[in-house]
Amino acid sequence: MKKLSKISALALMGLALTQPSLAQDAATIEVTPPMVEIGYILNSFMFLVMGFLVMFMAAGFTMLEAGLVRQKNVTMQLTKNVGLFGVAAITYYVVGYNLMYPGDGWSIANYVGAFSFTSVDPVGLADVDPDLTYASVGSDFFFQLMFCGATCSIVSGTLAERIKLWPFLAFCVVLTAFIYPIQASWKWGGGFLNEMGFLDFAGSTVVHSVGGWAALAGALILGPRLGKYKEGRVIPMVGSNLPLATLGTFILWLGWFGFNGGSQLYMDTAGNIADISRIFVNTNAAAAGGAVAALILTQLLYGRPDLTMVLNGALAGLVSITAEPLTPGLGMATLIGAAGGILAALAVPLLDKLKIDDVVGAIPVHLVCGIWGTLAVCLTNSDASLTTQLFSILIVGVFTFVASAAVWLVLRAVFGIRVSVEDEMMGLDKAELGMEAYPEFTKG
Amino acid sequence: MKKLSKISALALMGLALTQPSLAQDAATIEVTPPMVEIGYILNSFMFLVMGFLVMFMAAGFTMLEAGLVRQKNVTMQLTKNVGLFGVAAITYYVVGYNLMYPGDGWSIANYVGAFSFTSVDPVGLADVDPDLTYASVGSDFFFQLMFCGATCSIVSGTLAERIKLWPFLAFCVVLTAFIYPIQASWKWGGGFLNEMGFLDFAGSTVVHSVGGWAALAGALILGPRLGKYKEGRVIPMVGSNLPLATLGTFILWLGWFGFNGGSQLYMDTAGNIADISRIFVNTNAAAAGGAVAALILTQLLYGRPDLTMVLNGALAGLVSITAEPLTPGLGMATLIGAAGGILAALAVPLLDKLKIDDVVGAIPVHLVCGIWGTLAVCLTNSDASLTTQLFSILIVGVFTFVASAAVWLVLRAVFGIRVSVEDEMMGLDKAELGMEAYPEFTKG
Amino acid sequence: MKKLSKISALALMGLALTQPSLAQDAATIEVTPPMVEIGYILNSFMFLVMGFLVMFMAAGFTMLEAGLVRQKNVTMQLTKNVGLFGVAAITYYVVGYNLMYPGDGWSIANYVGAFSFTSVDPVGLADVDPDLTYASVGSDFFFQLMFCGATCSIVSGTLAERIKLWPFLAFCVVLTAFIYPIQASWKWGGGFLNEMGFLDFAGSTVVHSVGGWAALAGALILGPRLGKYKEGRVIPMVGSNLPLATLGTFILWLGWFGFNGGSQLYMDTAGNIADISRIFVNTNAAAAGGAVAALILTQLLYGRPDLTMVLNGALAGLVSITAEPLTPGLGMATLIGAAGGILAALAVPLLDKLKIDDVVGAIPVHLVCGIWGTLAVCLTNSDASLTTQLFSILIVGVFTFVASAAVWLVLRAVFGIRVSVEDEMMGLDKAELGMEAYPEFTKG
Repeated sequence: MKKLSKISALALMGLALTQPSLAQDAATIEVTPPMVEIGYILNSFMFLVMGFLVMFMAAGFTMLEAGLVRQKNVTMQLTKNVGLFGVAAITYYVVGYNLMYPGDGWSIANYVGAFSFTSVDPVGLADVDPDLTYASVGSDFFFQLMFCGATCSIVSGTLAERIKLWPFLAFCVVLTAFIYPIQASWKWGGGFLNEMGFLDFAGSTVVHSVGGWAALAGALILGPRLGKYKEGRVIPMVGSNLPLATLGTFILWLGWFGFNGGSQLYMDTAGNIADISRIFVNTNAAAAGGAVAALILTQLLYGRPDLTMVLNGALAGLVSITAEPLTPGLGMATLIGAAGGILAALAVPLLDKLKIDDVVGAIPVHLVCGIWGTLAVCLTNSDASLTTQLFSILIVGVFTFVASAAVWLVLRAVFGIRVSVEDEMMGLDKAELGMEAYPEFTKG
Repeated sequence: MKKLSKISALALMGLALTQPSLAQDAATIEVTPPMVEIGYILNSFMFLVMGFLVMFMAAGFTMLEAGLVRQKNVTMQLTKNVGLFGVAAITYYVVGYNLMYPGDGWSIANYVGAFSFTSVDPVGLADVDPDLTYASVGSDFFFQLMFCGATCSIVSGTLAERIKLWPFLAFCVVLTAFIYPIQASWKWGGGFLNEMGFLDFAGSTVVHSVGGWAALAGALILGPRLGKYKEGRVIPMVGSNLPLATLGTFILWLGWFGFNGGSQLYMDTAGNIADISRIFVNTNAAAAGGAVAALILTQLLYGRPDLTMVLNGALAGLVSITAEPLTPGLGMATLIGAAGGILAALAVPLLDKLKIDDVVGAIPVHLVCGIWGTLAVCLTNSDASLTTQLFSILIVGVFTFVASAAVWLVLRAVFGIRVSVEDEMMGLDKAELGMEAYPEFTKG
Repeated sequence: MKKLSKISALALMGLALTQPSLAQDAATIEVTPPMVEIGYILNSFMFLVMGFLVMFMAAGFTMLEAGLVRQKNVTMQLTKNVGLFGVAAITYYVVGYNLMYPGDGWSIANYVGAFSFTSVDPVGLADVDPDLTYASVGSDFFFQLMFCGATCSIVSGTLAERIKLWPFLAFCVVLTAFIYPIQASWKWGGGFLNEMGFLDFAGSTVVHSVGGWAALAGALILGPRLGKYKEGRVIPMVGSNLPLATLGTFILWLGWFGFNGGSQLYMDTAGNIADISRIFVNTNAAAAGGAVAALILTQLLYGRPDLTMVLNGALAGLVSITAEPLTPGLGMATLIGAAGGILAALAVPLLDKLKIDDVVGAIPVHLVCGIWGTLAVCLTNSDASLTTQLFSILIVGVFTFVASAAVWLVLRAVFGIRVSVEDEMMGLDKAELGMEAYPEFTKG
């Protein structure tokens, strides 16, 4: 029952409708069989293409975060991001994927039985009578794995510059093997949130707010960087390489077409490809809206534009449209994104007021706008219930925050999660890794 | 009448021809209906894939330009490029797209009536009887929007290191909302240049020379950077990050496959996909030709290769093949690109002699080679008329240059477009944005 | 007979099998003709998409290598990589492609007759009666060219920081025009290794070990960098920009989906797309396995993780799975990759012991793991013969090493291949090119 929740009646109707409507003659209905196989090829290839775009987001997050940390912590940030992406691939295969899709007829029993390694289709589909109405298991796994990896990447940015490598990776194991898949199953695995009518097309809540909640729990337990909040003032700790951060943002923007577009899940009818096209343009519009809104807002608030806010504005727009990239028109998508860009820009100083130290602004972008985007679904969906959306945000939030906090606390008690004061001051690259990111570009 | 001008008779014939030629039996003609829907899916998906490649060119331009400006102006260059891409998405939606394709039967009346927001296909194609012979409106809009954004990116490079942010973005509004779409409608909207037989497959003139003319008008009105031309000498102002510039070039090279390949507009027949394949290999050959030619030329002229010329050589080759990437053979494509690489390398010192300060070499690459590429169409197209090509280059050039100059002059009169001498010397990053791109990599 | 060797019986059977099995009625068999055309479109488009991913690997290699060399040699490394990619496009067109696929019925006679320029399909497939059972010649050429370019990129990393530009490019001419295509024809052109049953799906041997052997020959003849091995100690010469190296690794990881996935060659049946999906997930699993294994291993060996080893671990995993990315399950793919990551990490100090100076670790990654991957084919293929695999590794290795060494020796004798001691100490950028990569980021 992979992704049953997303097989819109529309899509199924589309398959049925378009063919008769186009066929001049009942005899051509016999054309259907090869059409199904072509549909299977198109759906699967769509997942692979969209999936490689989402995979590339791992590079986007890495560049964004490497650009926004200080020079002395860059190598560590790179190591964490490559490491977590490797870890996610293994844990999601070992347990995450099947846990997320616990079989036909979602139930506790199926759920418990779902702890198993992923098997993809046999070579050449030999010896199986494949159901060709969806896509290959391999292509679906590929696409879903990349979502899991993205969730994990969100966390690494917030906790940068002070967390130890191995405890961080241990957290990633739990996040990608259990926390992310379990809550994702509630919606995308056909679980209770799905049955309640919760709408989250590509994961403003399921992916982004989950990453944000996990990051928030970590940030609270880990504490702010040394010297970040001093005598009531916020000490700016500026990123070391803004072109890298900008590149990362563009890569994420690019990857988001796959993220949202692929979540249509089907590309086998004219209706589906037209929907994917809508999703692409809406996704782009929301990013543009977020970037431009942040540009104008920072000019108004601070008298000059702030590039890092503009970058986060674009990402905020993207997160905001992710819960419903299909139904809005282009203007509404732009506005939803713009509102996201403004919310993120306003959330940054708010977090600082609370002394929650989020190095790259992942909480404003992914958590705040993840919530906003999930609520914005109601603006363009007559079948969305604001209560259900709020309830789902809350239940996913509580689960993720509590589970994450528990893991962080255990890790802190057992191994310690924070580097020593000396190491933090020296920088994690020299202290923990003995390898500088830019050994020849030193401070004058 | 979207893109009527590019529906080659060949393509239509291909659809008709290949099917009967393959069918052993008249009965199979009834297969046609689902074929049309598959064709629609393939065309639309092709636009989305090619379109995301072109979208990524925004990152390519940004990295190229950020790498070629001096350290003190990098953040500003990043801000401009993210900003313009956001602006283009909004203006092209609000007015540009419909202005560019002013409806069936191109006429002044349709044209004036074309000022309207873009609407893409309804969700699920519900309640419409879609014409499935082309592609989804959303996919077409996505692809075309990225061309509009690319045009704008060309301008930002030339005017770097001295132009103010907001006047620059104001220019981008006019360029993407009006100047680009109006002249593009003359060819791609089925306008008078198209009816005259002007050939410009993917936009050597419509995109690249337009960006180049707008940049040239700006450069003349803005004037050169302080200290660039001193007592008859040209003072080199070298780029701060060549790996970034190289990355940008590779990203542009990659994106160009989408730029030229997608301009085939159809992927629903064997003939069309074979043509797209030709376009891919020709595009690559031209880039290779341009890069190698610039490598050899700079070795011969200066006694050692010049990397920035090699990068611009590759881009020059790409621009040169853009007006006709389909009809040349691989050898001819290589030569057209090589000629472009040489022209661009020779145009750089010429511009300096005229004291036109083009920071990244966008005028040599996009304007000079845009013209060359448009003329080169005649080398491999028996139906191309050199007079028509020249006339079209001229009319588009005059329109774009005059309109751009008018906008620049108004902006200069009303707001001023150039930063103060102090700000320029200090660098735009500190002076205008208060944010350095590499705050820890200081001059020794 | 392009790629006959890879048309698995399975694929052909797939085409035949799936249609009847799905058809309810013999009458629908007449559907076949348009299906063939759709298959042709899908196969060709698949090559273009996978091919542009492989093309982007050129950027990946360039960033990886530019990040791992010292600041004073970065511009040269960039120039070499752009140059070799341009060179490869020209030589592979002029002679390489046809030499690699010497026509139906592979024989010495066909082989000798194969020295000819590449011609792709005519525009619109006009005037030809195309065979639509495979893919367009243009798409196949595009895909294969990118493999040839990748082989060349491997060499440039090893020989960095001391080799002269023009002799290096001269070597690339021979490698891409003759050495690579000739040995590739033995397997992929239907030659004797293919007839013997040698299995190398996407080129652990044909591409990666060939790049590695050519690099090894060059490294031995060129000698280590000045000061690298001093009084029995290995002097570390650390990379100047690790974010760039990490970006390069991610780009290569992304590109590898195209590299391995496209090597399925067909996407016209459900069986083929399911196989491509398997290949994608296995490729990712191997990269993850290699990265995580190197992370753990360096922690155990050196007490702290080594980012450059982790990056090379991911690449080593990718090379290791390249000879057989289809038949393993996800777990086995992870293990094959992990073994590769460990082998590469252990080979680095071994090479240093032998005073073979490989600047970026290309020999451990591409040669050592290329061999390992080719042997690992036997783990999951009952029809693989260890003897044949070993023999093929040996014959390709001897041929490539001897041919490469001969070219390097001739180049050394005629032009000299190494820069002067003074130039090497000053750095190639200043000495040879007069252009620094980061002119404003100087040592403090």
